[in-house]
Amino acid sequence: MYSLDEVARRIGASIVGNPATRLERLGSIANAGPGDLTHLSSSLYRKHLKDTRASAVILSESDLEHCPTNALVVQDPALAYAIASKMFDDRPRIPLGINKNTDIHPSASIGDDVRIGPFVVIEADVELEDRVEIGPNCRVGAGSKLGSDTVLAGSVFIYHNVKLGERCFVHANSVIGADGFGFVPNRHGRLESVAQVGGVTIGNDVLIGASNTIDRGAIDDTIIEDGVKLDDQVHIGHNCKVGAHSMLCGCTGLGGSVTIGRHCVLAGGVGVAGSGPLTIADGVQVGAMTYISRSIDQPGQYQGAALHMPVAKWRRNMMRLTELDNLAKRLGRLERKLGDKP
Amino acid sequence: MYSLDEVARRIGASIVGNPATRLERLGSIANAGPGDLTHLSSSLYRKHLKDTRASAVILSESDLEHCPTNALVVQDPALAYAIASKMFDDRPRIPLGINKNTDIHPSASIGDDVRIGPFVVIEADVELEDRVEIGPNCRVGAGSKLGSDTVLAGSVFIYHNVKLGERCFVHANSVIGADGFGFVPNRHGRLESVAQVGGVTIGNDVLIGASNTIDRGAIDDTIIEDGVKLDDQVHIGHNCKVGAHSMLCGCTGLGGSVTIGRHCVLAGGVGVAGSGPLTIADGVQVGAMTYISRSIDQPGQYQGAALHMPVAKWRRNMMRLTELDNLAKRLGRLERKLGDKP
Amino acid sequence: MYSLDEVARRIGASIVGNPATRLERLGSIANAGPGDLTHLSSSLYRKHLKDTRASAVILSESDLEHCPTNALVVQDPALAYAIASKMFDDRPRIPLGINKNTDIHPSASIGDDVRIGPFVVIEADVELEDRVEIGPNCRVGAGSKLGSDTVLAGSVFIYHNVKLGERCFVHANSVIGADGFGFVPNRHGRLESVAQVGGVTIGNDVLIGASNTIDRGAIDDTIIEDGVKLDDQVHIGHNCKVGAHSMLCGCTGLGGSVTIGRHCVLAGGVGVAGSGPLTIADGVQVGAMTYISRSIDQPGQYQGAALHMPVAKWRRNMMRLTELDNLAKRLGRLERKLGDKP
Repeated sequence: MYSLDEVARRIGASIVGNPATRLERLGSIANAGPGDLTHLSSSLYRKHLKDTRASAVILSESDLEHCPTNALVVQDPALAYAIASKMFDDRPRIPLGINKNTDIHPSASIGDDVRIGPFVVIEADVELEDRVEIGPNCRVGAGSKLGSDTVLAGSVFIYHNVKLGERCFVHANSVIGADGFGFVPNRHGRLESVAQVGGVTIGNDVLIGASNTIDRGAIDDTIIEDGVKLDDQVHIGHNCKVGAHSMLCGCTGLGGSVTIGRHCVLAGGVGVAGSGPLTIADGVQVGAMTYISRSIDQPGQYQGAALHMPVAKWRRNMMRLTELDNLAKRLGRLERKLGDKP
Repeated sequence: MYSLDEVARRIGASIVGNPATRLERLGSIANAGPGDLTHLSSSLYRKHLKDTRASAVILSESDLEHCPTNALVVQDPALAYAIASKMFDDRPRIPLGINKNTDIHPSASIGDDVRIGPFVVIEADVELEDRVEIGPNCRVGAGSKLGSDTVLAGSVFIYHNVKLGERCFVHANSVIGADGFGFVPNRHGRLESVAQVGGVTIGNDVLIGASNTIDRGAIDDTIIEDGVKLDDQVHIGHNCKVGAHSMLCGCTGLGGSVTIGRHCVLAGGVGVAGSGPLTIADGVQVGAMTYISRSIDQPGQYQGAALHMPVAKWRRNMMRLTELDNLAKRLGRLERKLGDKP
Repeated sequence: MYSLDEVARRIGASIVGNPATRLERLGSIANAGPGDLTHLSSSLYRKHLKDTRASAVILSESDLEHCPTNALVVQDPALAYAIASKMFDDRPRIPLGINKNTDIHPSASIGDDVRIGPFVVIEADVELEDRVEIGPNCRVGAGSKLGSDTVLAGSVFIYHNVKLGERCFVHANSVIGADGFGFVPNRHGRLESVAQVGGVTIGNDVLIGASNTIDRGAIDDTIIEDGVKLDDQVHIGHNCKVGAHSMLCGCTGLGGSVTIGRHCVLAGGVGVAGSGPLTIADGVQVGAMTYISRSIDQPGQYQGAALHMPVAKWRRNMMRLTELDNLAKRLGRLERKLGDKP
């Protein structure tokens, strides 16, 4: 519980209303009630402002006149709400200390004030810095290192020689450091595996969602830079490098040796894979379900997937698409016949 | 083991044959042998009927004349087989009681006749109703609730404040209640996370396949209604609502704030994500690998992904697709030149 | 550590240089240093050869003249490197024996020299052959069998009646044998599940990546033949059959009853699903993100997904695609008007 004034100071807002108002929890603008802090960050929700029962609303000055309750006026309500929301986060934490029902190798180096839950396995030469928190059923492989304040939610599997920086958060059932997928067919077409002896290096403030797979490098490390945010079910192939402060949304996959620039956004279900290494420039935004098969060297917005249609229309159009090159040639021939310049 | 008569009564079938015939297991119509119960539900398999060695076949009256063995005649063989099949299900269950090698918070409320396997973690204030079954290495987070007869197969990770109804089944390695993916860039392009303080509410008779990720809501709950069936590797973003009795097939992903209607079917690999909230009407069926970027307000069948082609042809056609708008304009110009109405 | 001579004999290479050179580890051609073994298998990396500081390079005779260090000359450098790389693999192994903190049913049959880590659950009638290695937090369901030298990395969940052959490797958090996805709607649109009583049969030398889901058969088994390699986050539906020595790259999904031939390669993010069973011939290669909706009966390369474009262009072109059939008809009318043969 905070006063309106405490929240205002945290986010640098001007108060219009009573600074002593008590804020107990977060609420959505349409469903909030007394004691709730809410926000108006998108015009989609503006219609709910005049009727909101929240005790306070974070909003822009331009929305102030329609606010029926206490207001916290800021330049960027979305950002201010993000910062304020963390004051109300109620995630339960693993109790301080090391649960007795764990399997921790004596060579592991354990910092101060760690929290380690039941059925956790820590292998040889692991290094856990101060205040690391490891939920139940996790395993940290030999020689891996977790920087201070990093959290593994639970059932996370870290292979050997994986390095995570400080303040990272890894959601449940993610796997970091499994072998990259490298095979060479022999003369009988049998697939000979290539040993994957690189590791994974992850920077500070990286968020890894649930059920991610981030493969270890073949020789050099797979790299995730500072501040990267990965949603659920993201796959990162071996020797990828994801640039700082980029976001990869759910179900996106990177094949091997893909470099993503800094401050990129890949929407959900994107696939990036080429016949060789492939590089996406800084500041590229890719729409959902897009296939990226070639490097992109200019920042900007890109997209690829076809739009949905009623199925009968889809079938006819997609059959035509399989003949589109012929259609184009037929059009060119007509143009030539008519003396028209293509 | 059941008699033909017992099965007939369960599914409301007319018997043509010997009611005392013993049925020991299920078989496919092509490979079945004595003691097997099989079914003919699809014309694709009709050719196998006359030679089947099964002890009984569930079929329609119209197929009866070619049945060489005992028949169970029904209106809807697929549905009758589904009901009968569960009589022969042989899934091993966790033994009754609570395994001694578990970590259960004393504040948890545990119903009668539960089954809890080894290395399970139950956090504070969890509520498990009667006959709940929890396989090995699962974790149920603080304040979460599992309705009676609900099963977690194993290695399932439930975060805090997640509610599952009665008779749900969650397959291995699924994650329910991880944080939704919400970030706001600050002026330096660093991504500030938004606290995800909503929960997940799941109805009765919901099936969740293996390796699903169902995120908690940002403020209000993510909702899965009664009777929903989710295949493996399905991802549900924060604040989605999946309507009752809908099916989402393997590898399908919903971005945040997607509402799916009732009785919908999303085939495999579908991605639903827009720039804002997005709503799919009741009774919509979406073909595999389709990208849904806008709301659909009419029931019906929709599809989107392009068809496969030999790669040389694909390359030519897809290059043309990147110029399709120009082709269309060239066509329009020719039409105008020829006085043709577009 | 090996001598150049030892490596040369293992891969059948001719030595150009000093056979006594000590090789301590693997290195990439651009970053290698003294003691490193590297390789030149792709023309993309040829530019780094003349400056490499590696102690030895596996290469083709045609690249020999520019090699500044010891050379191992072979016909197929990629294959030779794959074989040599395994000499330097440093994956830590579970210690020999059975960890005391496990839950192993007395009816399980355990071979010689097995390695079983902490918090592992082995159910009734499981059969583990010699030298099986099972990492922490795995569960092997009743009646399942693991052939000799097979490894489960950790947090792998094997359901009942799953058979893996010899020398298989399953990466973390994969699930084998969850129920296939089979439902039949009743007259109220409620979905009645079909019992999935088949198993899973997996051959020898199969590699299963992290976070795979391989469903059990409805009646007959789901089958993965010898030498198949599955990358991370691959989904195999019930009653699929994947032919020997085929590769499925990351995030690829097969719906139910899909048969993939031998020596196929499905790139990442491919989806294979039709309205009925579907068969892909031997020797088919499918490009990334392709949707395969129909059987393919000829070997060769196939692809389907659209290419990415700048988003404004994408929007215009994809709107046109929804009217492509009309465009084609308009073109046909012009051709007829002009007496042109389509």
